[in-house]
Amino acid sequence: MIITKREKFPALYLYVSKAAAKPQVEFDYDGPSMKTTVPGPRSKELMKQLGQIQNTGAINFFCNYEESKGNYLVDVDGNRMLDIYTQISSIPIGYNHPALLKVMANPNNLSTFVNRPALGILPPENFPDKITESLLSVAPSGMTRVQTMSCGACSNENAYKAIFIWYRNKERGQNTPTNEELNTSMINQAPGCPELSILSFMGGFHGRTLGCLATTHSKAIHKLDIPSFDWPVAPFPRLQYPLDEFTRENAEEEARCLEEVEDLIVKWRQKGKPVAGIVIEPIQAEGGDNHASPDFFRRLRNIARKHGCAFHVDEVQTGGGGTGKFWAHEHWGMDDPADIVSFSKKLLSGGYYHKDELQPDKPYRIFNTWMGDPSKNLFLSEVLNVIRRENLLEEVTRSGKALLNGLYELQAQYPSILSRARGQGTFCAIDAFDDATRDRILLKARDKGVLLGGCGDRSIRFRPALVFKEYHVNLFLNIFNDVLAQHK
Amino acid sequence: MIITKREKFPALYLYVSKAAAKPQVEFDYDGPSMKTTVPGPRSKELMKQLGQIQNTGAINFFCNYEESKGNYLVDVDGNRMLDIYTQISSIPIGYNHPALLKVMANPNNLSTFVNRPALGILPPENFPDKITESLLSVAPSGMTRVQTMSCGACSNENAYKAIFIWYRNKERGQNTPTNEELNTSMINQAPGCPELSILSFMGGFHGRTLGCLATTHSKAIHKLDIPSFDWPVAPFPRLQYPLDEFTRENAEEEARCLEEVEDLIVKWRQKGKPVAGIVIEPIQAEGGDNHASPDFFRRLRNIARKHGCAFHVDEVQTGGGGTGKFWAHEHWGMDDPADIVSFSKKLLSGGYYHKDELQPDKPYRIFNTWMGDPSKNLFLSEVLNVIRRENLLEEVTRSGKALLNGLYELQAQYPSILSRARGQGTFCAIDAFDDATRDRILLKARDKGVLLGGCGDRSIRFRPALVFKEYHVNLFLNIFNDVLAQHK
Repeated sequence: MIITKREKFPALYLYVSKAAAKPQVEFDYDGPSMKTTVPGPRSKELMKQLGQIQNTGAINFFCNYEESKGNYLVDVDGNRMLDIYTQISSIPIGYNHPALLKVMANPNNLSTFVNRPALGILPPENFPDKITESLLSVAPSGMTRVQTMSCGACSNENAYKAIFIWYRNKERGQNTPTNEELNTSMINQAPGCPELSILSFMGGFHGRTLGCLATTHSKAIHKLDIPSFDWPVAPFPRLQYPLDEFTRENAEEEARCLEEVEDLIVKWRQKGKPVAGIVIEPIQAEGGDNHASPDFFRRLRNIARKHGCAFHVDEVQTGGGGTGKFWAHEHWGMDDPADIVSFSKKLLSGGYYHKDELQPDKPYRIFNTWMGDPSKNLFLSEVLNVIRRENLLEEVTRSGKALLNGLYELQAQYPSILSRARGQGTFCAIDAFDDATRDRILLKARDKGVLLGGCGDRSIRFRPALVFKEYHVNLFLNIFNDVLAQHK
Repeated sequence: MIITKREKFPALYLYVSKAAAKPQVEFDYDGPSMKTTVPGPRSKELMKQLGQIQNTGAINFFCNYEESKGNYLVDVDGNRMLDIYTQISSIPIGYNHPALLKVMANPNNLSTFVNRPALGILPPENFPDKITESLLSVAPSGMTRVQTMSCGACSNENAYKAIFIWYRNKERGQNTPTNEELNTSMINQAPGCPELSILSFMGGFHGRTLGCLATTHSKAIHKLDIPSFDWPVAPFPRLQYPLDEFTRENAEEEARCLEEVEDLIVKWRQKGKPVAGIVIEPIQAEGGDNHASPDFFRRLRNIARKHGCAFHVDEVQTGGGGTGKFWAHEHWGMDDPADIVSFSKKLLSGGYYHKDELQPDKPYRIFNTWMGDPSKNLFLSEVLNVIRRENLLEEVTRSGKALLNGLYELQAQYPSILSRARGQGTFCAIDAFDDATRDRILLKARDKGVLLGGCGDRSIRFRPALVFKEYHVNLFLNIFNDVLAQHK
């Protein structure tokens, strides 16, 4: 007698009925609805049109954002997909959320959209109040200052600049710069433009502008042909899963990486390129959803302190609630987790929080024309209201458990395809056998109405909105199981 | 008998009566109206509040954007100023323009504001049409491709990347990269991250992120303490004014600079850091409104071609109509003015146009999460409609002539204070005796209801909106004359 997979893992087939409770996302659809393979004919037509203007190699399909709702993204061919990728993790509370539509309907907000100010010189009257009620209401522990920026890359670029300025002021004892420094800075030379460095981690991703890119080590194609800085790159722990079976091995691996960090700091100091700051993601998100233990981060933070380096936690992808806490670094349980925390994506525009001492000493050192966009802060205030009102962080924790348990079951059921299920909240991932398998699974899932993303060499990443409930988890697991069952 | 200035320069005192014709800016105020010195008490209060959160050293005052209209910026103390700085040149058609308010009132546009897409992977259905009707309808000569970005710095960063990718593909003959290149790129080392350079000009400004900053040479404080690249910096011509009196001297000066450019290209090639691209502003805007002749730019463009360097024209500040043409480079009269033209500010979001061959060969090489913001393109479409409907480029040319003539008269009248009046369209500037004089004049003008900006060491820059008419020019000249008359 052949035992079918259905008999062996009956729980898997109960997801939908288990979750008969109506989802609390009122503005959601009932489920995916597919009319064509994806991309469908209309998407293909538009790709041709856009191909006259841009490289369209990365485009999945074209979207009908008007018809998209909650967890569902609708495409131009009428396909409706459960979106577990959410515009690379940047849609916090689903599509066309009523709370956000209300922001648009409020006539008091019109002027904020129409008159984009140069925030650094001529802010609107309500700017201090608005960032207090939005960004500062979720400030990381120990931080009361925030600098807004337009996007994630600009946020990290400017955070690095704040680190360099702070570091040099420390070195020169807050004295005014010499004429030699001022003059050499104008032609890109030391001592005015000093040979300082930022230490980053292999597999990390911090953006693609030239400064950020020097700390990004996700894929070669992101970096190839672009001039860079000779900055140190430390290994990020490669943990073995399940974590509780490999406690000793993982602790050793983390110790090895931390030792290497200290070695690199010393080495680069000797090279005359001192490490002014260390930048790290709480979970390496583009690089393959690589986790490390809270203990690793606490010890790394201490190493930074010991060597006088600023500790910069890049929460561009992890921030905003996906891990079940508003900031992923809250899982480390520290009062003083960082000197700088950068954000973007789910926060709807970029920026960074920082300790007081990382505020630039003079105006115009951290500056650009717009320095953010107050219209995005209007939306963020509403997003935060919804998160609080609907206890979305608790919901994410609940959905995340269901998701991760489902992934554990699936990798037990399909051990030749899946491994290393991992995650925090709904910020989860699982590895496929290889990149080709991963890519095939992603396309098949999409054709069945589930939109997922890849990351790293062969990982699938889950980045649903905060309104992704257990009901949606179960919907997903059923479809995913079908995909895997059909996978050859 | 003492001849008063009024008798000596009677024309100056006729500005307002000359312009009795009602200004065509219907939604404008009649003139400035000052209640307090600036910043007033409410602004000072808010500065204190914001000072708890950010460095407020660059803040002029706080604004009431709801009450601001057309050419007038209203502050939180009820002062109404004629705005000739327009948020660092980024407000194209004045405050609260009815055409832009209509964009907000159109329910079809709601979704574009509320659901910000990841344009590189999941663009909205109307994206090809929208950028065709907005950005491509004003594409520079010879360019049919455009890449949107969020801000000016990101635009230049990505334009430089496109240049480096193009240059290396040319060098390797479009072959696929070697494994050594791929591997070394991951750790920031050559050959994967090659030692290529961008040649820029002393006095130029191209943004403040680390790549851009390596080509920015405006003020030391912008660059101090930030690590940089060893890239060549050429002299920008220092022309003598009035131009028609110094034809020979200026031609020699331009020839000297061009010779230096070629020398630097050769020198950096020998150093093993070949110049992949040359970046230049048509008018050095932050660096002091430095002009060069069309002949200079034509010859520079030829030098770029001769040495196989991409020619990147940075129109972030000059683009969008302020010079009387939509792009300042149109004044050069060339069919093939550039390989890359970057923009932001008056275009409401950033990006760059490029020749076909500068499109990256593979997806994800020029990429980030948002890659622009379609809601800004909605506004841009309307801005372009208004520019066409109201012939604003002609208006700018007309206002610009009146402004420049007025500045000529004022510098003749106050030769100990003012010199070097210069400009194209309303994109004008004049020099004060020194930086302290300039700063005092700016503050006095502001207290009399005229908002201006500084640039370079001691220049005053004029950056009005495109709806700044002769009537506003005359209003300004009268007030400015009063400021100068009172200046000790």
